[in-house]
Amino acid sequence: MFSRILIANRGEVALRVIRACKELGIESVAVFSEADRNASYVKFADHAVCIGPAQPAKSYLNVQAIISAAEITDVDAIHPGYGFLAENAEFAEICADCGITFIGPSPESMKQLGDKVKAREIALNAEVPVVPGSDGAIESEAQAFELAREIGFPVIVKASAGGGGRGMRVVHNDLNLKNALTAAKSEAEIAFKNDEVYIEKFIERPRHVEVQALADTYGNAVHFYERDCSVQRRHQKLIEEAPCPVIMPETREKLCEAAKRLLKEANYHNAATVEFLLDKDNNFYFIEVNTRIQVEHPVSELVTGQDLIKHQILVAAGLPLSVSQDEIKLNGCAIECRINAENPEMNFAPCPGPIDDFFVPGGFGVRVETFLKQGDFISPNYDSMIAKLLVHQPDRETALATMKRALQEFQISPIKTTIPASLKIIDHPSYRNNQIDTGFLESEMEF
Amino acid sequence: MFSRILIANRGEVALRVIRACKELGIESVAVFSEADRNASYVKFADHAVCIGPAQPAKSYLNVQAIISAAEITDVDAIHPGYGFLAENAEFAEICADCGITFIGPSPESMKQLGDKVKAREIALNAEVPVVPGSDGAIESEAQAFELAREIGFPVIVKASAGGGGRGMRVVHNDLNLKNALTAAKSEAEIAFKNDEVYIEKFIERPRHVEVQALADTYGNAVHFYERDCSVQRRHQKLIEEAPCPVIMPETREKLCEAAKRLLKEANYHNAATVEFLLDKDNNFYFIEVNTRIQVEHPVSELVTGQDLIKHQILVAAGLPLSVSQDEIKLNGCAIECRINAENPEMNFAPCPGPIDDFFVPGGFGVRVETFLKQGDFISPNYDSMIAKLLVHQPDRETALATMKRALQEFQISPIKTTIPASLKIIDHPSYRNNQIDTGFLESEMEF
Repeated sequence: MFSRILIANRGEVALRVIRACKELGIESVAVFSEADRNASYVKFADHAVCIGPAQPAKSYLNVQAIISAAEITDVDAIHPGYGFLAENAEFAEICADCGITFIGPSPESMKQLGDKVKAREIALNAEVPVVPGSDGAIESEAQAFELAREIGFPVIVKASAGGGGRGMRVVHNDLNLKNALTAAKSEAEIAFKNDEVYIEKFIERPRHVEVQALADTYGNAVHFYERDCSVQRRHQKLIEEAPCPVIMPETREKLCEAAKRLLKEANYHNAATVEFLLDKDNNFYFIEVNTRIQVEHPVSELVTGQDLIKHQILVAAGLPLSVSQDEIKLNGCAIECRINAENPEMNFAPCPGPIDDFFVPGGFGVRVETFLKQGDFISPNYDSMIAKLLVHQPDRETALATMKRALQEFQISPIKTTIPASLKIIDHPSYRNNQIDTGFLESEMEF
Repeated sequence: MFSRILIANRGEVALRVIRACKELGIESVAVFSEADRNASYVKFADHAVCIGPAQPAKSYLNVQAIISAAEITDVDAIHPGYGFLAENAEFAEICADCGITFIGPSPESMKQLGDKVKAREIALNAEVPVVPGSDGAIESEAQAFELAREIGFPVIVKASAGGGGRGMRVVHNDLNLKNALTAAKSEAEIAFKNDEVYIEKFIERPRHVEVQALADTYGNAVHFYERDCSVQRRHQKLIEEAPCPVIMPETREKLCEAAKRLLKEANYHNAATVEFLLDKDNNFYFIEVNTRIQVEHPVSELVTGQDLIKHQILVAAGLPLSVSQDEIKLNGCAIECRINAENPEMNFAPCPGPIDDFFVPGGFGVRVETFLKQGDFISPNYDSMIAKLLVHQPDRETALATMKRALQEFQISPIKTTIPASLKIIDHPSYRNNQIDTGFLESEMEF
C-alpha cells in the first residue's frame, strides 16, 4: 500500500482526497499556490508544498513544479482530483517515468477515450449503443450529405477533439449543412489544433445520464449505478441526482452493463464515468467517457454506501476490487447542488470575495463537501465552485424536502452564490415532476 | 396534521426539531431566553418568542411563559426536546389542558415509568429481565439483610425516585448494609422528598445498552435496535455507538423484543429508550425507561435510515406508525462523540466563552448536529454540550477511522472542548478492542 500521496489539486477535492488518505492511514501532501497558502485543505494535509503563484498555469497546471514537490516529499502516488491535470495523459506518463503511481487510468486509456472518434469505435466494438452517425471523421462533404439524409435531420456536427460546446453545430436541413461543416472545422482547428469533425443524429430533449464505474488491473469492473445530470447551464452541471428518476429498471440494468462492457473493451482501470444521452423513449446513446473522478461522485457514494476515492486509491495500489457487483446496492435517493460563487441574477457571473458570514447546514441526511470557513476569501483565480451540498433520503420527495431546508440554512455572505438559484430550480414544477431535459435550465428558468 | 409546532427547548435539539418540521411542511416556533436571542436556531424557525432571562428556571423551565408563547402563536403541539421539561408529567398535563398536543408519551406513562419501583413492576409483568432485587421499596432492615443474602453481595441500594447517582450505595458485605440503608434514605429524602429505597444485585463491569423504540396510539410498537453507551463519565455519556459491538445476534433479538413488550405493557406511545445493563455473559437487565427522545438518537437514525423526530411528530398527530419492524434494517456502524465545552485537563470543568475559530468537519459518512457558527458565544447558563459529531460506515473499524479524522478536523477555539478527550478514547486499546464497561472512562483513562 502507498505510504504517502500527493494531491495535485486544490479546494474541496483536495480535502476530499486528504480525508480518504487519513482514513486509510496514508500520509497526504497538499500542494498550494500562493493564493491558497492559508486554505484549510492545506492545513489538514500531513505535508504541504507551495508550487507557484496564483495563476493556474504557474501552479496547479505546472507539471514541473508538481513533480518536484512529489519528489521532494518522496510520495508513492499522485491523485489528480478533477480538472487541472486530471485528464492530461502526458502528465500521467511523466508520473510513470518518475516512478510515481498516477491514481487514474493508464495514459493509453486516457488518450483513446479522450478522442471522441476512437471512443465511439470502442463503444461500437463493445456493442454499446451510440448516437447514429459517421463512425469516424467526415472525409468529404458528399459523405456528410449522404449520412445526414440516411440518419435524418436534425443532426449535429462535432469536433473529434472537442468539448464544452466548441466546434459544435446543430443542423436542421440540407441547406445549412455545408456552412456548419466549414464553421465547425475552423472552430475545431483553432480550439483543438485538429479540424476533424464528425456527424451524429441530434437527440432532441435528452436527459444526461452517466454511469459511475470502477475497474481494477485484473480485469474486474463494477458499476455504482447512474446519475442524472440534466440540470445544466452551458454544459455546466448544477444539480445531479441518483438514481435517474425516469429510467426504467430494465433500462438501468442495460445501461450500467453497457458502461462496464465499454471499460472492459478499453482495458480500462480505475474510476470512470460513462456518459449517455437518454431520450424520451428510454433509449440511451453513449456520448463519452470521463477518465477521472467527477465533481458529482458523492451522489453515487450516498446511494451505494461505497467510498469511491478509497476505491480509486486501493485499485491504483494494485489491489483487486474489494467489492463485488452483488454487494453494491442502490439505496434511496441522493441529490447534489453545486454551490458556486456566482451571481445568478447577473447571468451567473463569478462573484469572488470575502466570506464574512458562514453557516454550514447539517443534520439528518445532509452531507457537505467544502474547504471553507468564515473569514476565508474566494479567489478570482479558480473555478467558482466553493461547496457541494448533498442529501440522502429514502425517496426523491423526502430528499427534495431535505435539500430545500438545507439550502435555506446554508449561509455564505456577502458574496453571491447559486443557493437561491438552486432553491428556485428544486421548486420548479418541471423539475419536481421529472419533466426536464438538458435544455430545461436555459429554456424554462429565469433568475 | 399539525400546522405549527413550538419547540420548548434551545440549542442543537431545537434546531433538530425545526429541521424536521421544515421537511414535513410544518411551521416552527422557537422560544429563546435573552441569552439566546441571536442563536442560529432562533433564526431558522418561522416564528420566535422570548420567554425570559438567561436562567433556565426563568425561561426554558418557565411553564407559564412557554404556554403563553404557545397560545400567542397558536400552535397545535409542543415538542419538548430532551432535558428541561421533557420528562415533566405536570407540563404534559398542562399542555393537554390547554388543548395543545405534547409530543411525547401520556402524563400517566411518564409518571409510571419515572418511578423506578413501578417501572420495575411493569418490566416484571412484561417478562423483561430485571436485576434481581427487592421488587419494590425496602420495608425493614430485616428484609434488606435477608434479600442481600439471597441474591448475594455485592448489592446496590438505590432511591426509588432517584437518578444521577444520588441516593445510591454499593454494599459488599453485611457489615456495611445498615449504614448504607440509612445514608441512602436520608440522601433520597433530601434530593427527591421521598425516602423510599430498594435493593438490587450489583452487576459488575456491565455495559450500558439501550433500545430505541417507538409506539403509536394504536398499539403498534417498533424498535430501532440498540445503542451502546458505556463510555460515560459520572453517568454522563460521552461516546455512543450502534450496534453494541459485543452483543450476540440472538441476545439482540431478545433485548429489542423485551423493550417492545415493556412499552406495550405500559400502554406507551411515542419515542422511548429502554435502558439495560449487559453483563459479560451477555445477560441483560432492565434499568429504566427514558420517556423522551435522547441526545444520542441520531446514532440509531444512521444505522436504520429512519428519522426519529419525524416519527415522533407523526405519531403524536395520531397517525399510525409509518414503518413496520420488517422495514427497519440494521445497516453498518454509527458512532457519536458529544462535543462539550469542557476542559478535559481540568476535570471536565465547563468552559464557556467565545468561538473565534470554527471549522465543521464534513465529507463521506459524517453528520454534524450543531447550532453554532463562528462568532457565537457559549453561555455559562446551559448544558455544555455544543455539538454532536456522528459517523456512519459499513463497519466499526472504518467508522473509527472516519471519527478520528473528523475529530481532527473539528476546530472550535479558543474555548476548550472534549474533542481531544474523544480522540484519546477512540484510540485507547480497551475501547478499540471492545474490552470496556461503564467504569472504563473513570478507571482506565487520564486526560
